[in-house]
Amino acid sequence: MRDFLPGDKARRESVLARIRSTYTAHGFDEIETPVVEDSSRLHAGLGGDNEKLAFGILKRGLTTDDFAAATDPLDLADLGLRFDLTVPLTRFYASHHGELPSVFRAIQIAPVWRAERPQKGRYRQFMQCDIDIIGETGPLAEIELLTATLDTLSVLGLVGCTIRINDRRLLTSMLTSLGFPAGEHAAVLITIDKLDKLGSHGVVAELRDRAFPDAPVEALEEFLLRPSTPPQSFSEELIRASLPEGVDEMAIVELAALGSALADSSQLVFDPFLVRGMGYYTGTIFEVAHPDLGYSLGGGGRYDGMIGRFLGTDVPAAGISLGFERLVDLVTTSSESSTDAVALVYESVEPSLLANLKSTLIAQGLRVRLEKKPKKLPGLLDTLAASGFGRFAVVTPSTATVDDLDFRPLTK
Amino acid sequence: MRDFLPGDKARRESVLARIRSTYTAHGFDEIETPVVEDSSRLHAGLGGDNEKLAFGILKRGLTTDDFAAATDPLDLADLGLRFDLTVPLTRFYASHHGELPSVFRAIQIAPVWRAERPQKGRYRQFMQCDIDIIGETGPLAEIELLTATLDTLSVLGLVGCTIRINDRRLLTSMLTSLGFPAGEHAAVLITIDKLDKLGSHGVVAELRDRAFPDAPVEALEEFLLRPSTPPQSFSEELIRASLPEGVDEMAIVELAALGSALADSSQLVFDPFLVRGMGYYTGTIFEVAHPDLGYSLGGGGRYDGMIGRFLGTDVPAAGISLGFERLVDLVTTSSESSTDAVALVYESVEPSLLANLKSTLIAQGLRVRLEKKPKKLPGLLDTLAASGFGRFAVVTPSTATVDDLDFRPLTK
Repeated sequence: MRDFLPGDKARRESVLARIRSTYTAHGFDEIETPVVEDSSRLHAGLGGDNEKLAFGILKRGLTTDDFAAATDPLDLADLGLRFDLTVPLTRFYASHHGELPSVFRAIQIAPVWRAERPQKGRYRQFMQCDIDIIGETGPLAEIELLTATLDTLSVLGLVGCTIRINDRRLLTSMLTSLGFPAGEHAAVLITIDKLDKLGSHGVVAELRDRAFPDAPVEALEEFLLRPSTPPQSFSEELIRASLPEGVDEMAIVELAALGSALADSSQLVFDPFLVRGMGYYTGTIFEVAHPDLGYSLGGGGRYDGMIGRFLGTDVPAAGISLGFERLVDLVTTSSESSTDAVALVYESVEPSLLANLKSTLIAQGLRVRLEKKPKKLPGLLDTLAASGFGRFAVVTPSTATVDDLDFRPLTK
Repeated sequence: MRDFLPGDKARRESVLARIRSTYTAHGFDEIETPVVEDSSRLHAGLGGDNEKLAFGILKRGLTTDDFAAATDPLDLADLGLRFDLTVPLTRFYASHHGELPSVFRAIQIAPVWRAERPQKGRYRQFMQCDIDIIGETGPLAEIELLTATLDTLSVLGLVGCTIRINDRRLLTSMLTSLGFPAGEHAAVLITIDKLDKLGSHGVVAELRDRAFPDAPVEALEEFLLRPSTPPQSFSEELIRASLPEGVDEMAIVELAALGSALADSSQLVFDPFLVRGMGYYTGTIFEVAHPDLGYSLGGGGRYDGMIGRFLGTDVPAAGISLGFERLVDLVTTSSESSTDAVALVYESVEPSLLANLKSTLIAQGLRVRLEKKPKKLPGLLDTLAASGFGRFAVVTPSTATVDDLDFRPLTK
């Protein structure tokens, strides 16, 4: 967990404001939920491995008898810090759906917490930027999510991003056509999900180690090691050519239609082995990639069954989450000095004069910083310029009103 | 703890943006700290009664042996949720003072948590808006804090706010002049702090119950029940007239000078019995009051000794915290519809057409919401108007480009 100093904080707020305004332009509405959720909800099996990383909050008023009787941390923790924004969203929707539009497009820009071991690029508190569309069955949800995400990446000036895309139905159908029994699909996908890390040979070796039947593993090996087709634009032909024979035709056609519905599908990449860890995905799945990063910038997909678990009736849903900490490091922000930000450097003057000058300038629309004149003025002027202040004036005992101030530019 | 739906969230963000930009205009810089602090810091005696309300976070990897061995909740909780923004600020300053200006003006706008029993107007998660000036000994800090606070209240359109003001040195000097031994001052102040609730007779009765010496309690009673002077403008005369004889002259003069340094002191009210609960205050103390509220909107003061406890060397500091939840309920926000926010109401059209129209309109700078045409169109149009959308157009199979759209106004 980190502190953010003024420069970092201003930079983060500026990037967040651009993300927020782009998502809002795309018709999404921002909501907020408490950072704390009931333990029972955080540990309901929807968070995958992240559930184990939830910080638990100690019950209030416990006695040593309670401690001694506890057999599990959850006996002592009735609440916990959220580890993602999807679990809170499903709870939010179940509570408030009566007050929300029938198709609800949500923005959530908020911190989450995971008790991970500290390592480079991973933090225990980090921001996520999620958009979700609840109540839309058709491909329009995916189209709006992809368009809003690509537009946001473009507004942030991130060049070369791609979105890897797949469909859980294609994965299932592929495993069936390779000969894996349906009951083993989930287990096989855990290994296939490591393809980026292990490579084709590694995946096959792990499947053999885990004693899956020989024939389907061999079929998968043959398919993985086939001569690869050169990259082409996102199309039905490309998708079909990237899959074994006999895969769900309807899912191929629907996924291809998604690509053609976008004004520009050049950033979409079909990846037949994209799995996404979470078990709750039911259709399309996405992963946002940037050429400078070895890991994803975010991801998401369709999770039609999840809200029904809380609400009782099934509600279709899909979403994409961007990892803000990874994103903000890639964004170039200009820290231009503004001539509307001025510093008053003073020596030996009455506080009332400074208060008066400052109030007058603020009323004129300026941002005003008071600075006592130090022994080394150039150092202060450099710091002010670096902090975005564009002009300064010196206040002396002979200054009476703002008309007496002689503003000079601050240059970096 | 509460969920915020789109309308509430937009309203809160709009008020926060106005507070943030006013504080920034006054030369303050925003920082951010993690929501979690070490338990040892949260329970270091600086948070007063709030320390008891800190949510503890369960250590990771505990066993039943650890549970059985625990004799205190803090044996099991190494971290906790912050209960205010002052304790984190002192930790932040101690860590980063080398990278900060010699006079550091901090904005913190962030949630805090307290395990209170739920009651009207109190929440377990709530936002605070703090400004603090660290490194300024003189009255300029108080002047800048008061000016920025009054300007913020004015920008938010809150009419009739006052700031009650006192000085810890005047309180001490008053108790001495009434005859209370120095060792009993802290204990006496705990009762005087209840003056608003108990009234003069109640305070005197409680002091008698608590067996403080008769003579000073009688002197206090006489002083409390003296004929009160009519309210006057904030001045040295008023302050002197509001205090018993023999009180610290220097502190009177300094407090009065603070009033005259402000461009407008009409909102300042001297209150010789203002205590502020926290033990760490060393000089001026403030409390922000609004005529519609029976409780304060916020408060603060000078706390010169506190940062030194972490840093080793004494650093002067003063701050004011506004309670955002109380504030936001008082602010009238206009929810004007914008003609730049448009809805496309569609029926039986291809998703690709909708995606294309939407992207084109967003590129023109509009905010665009897609809505499937419902059976009852007027209900949808009302909802859209209430959500700030200013225009709508119907998309039909005969629509080809945005030029075919016939936008009509949405009215509330």
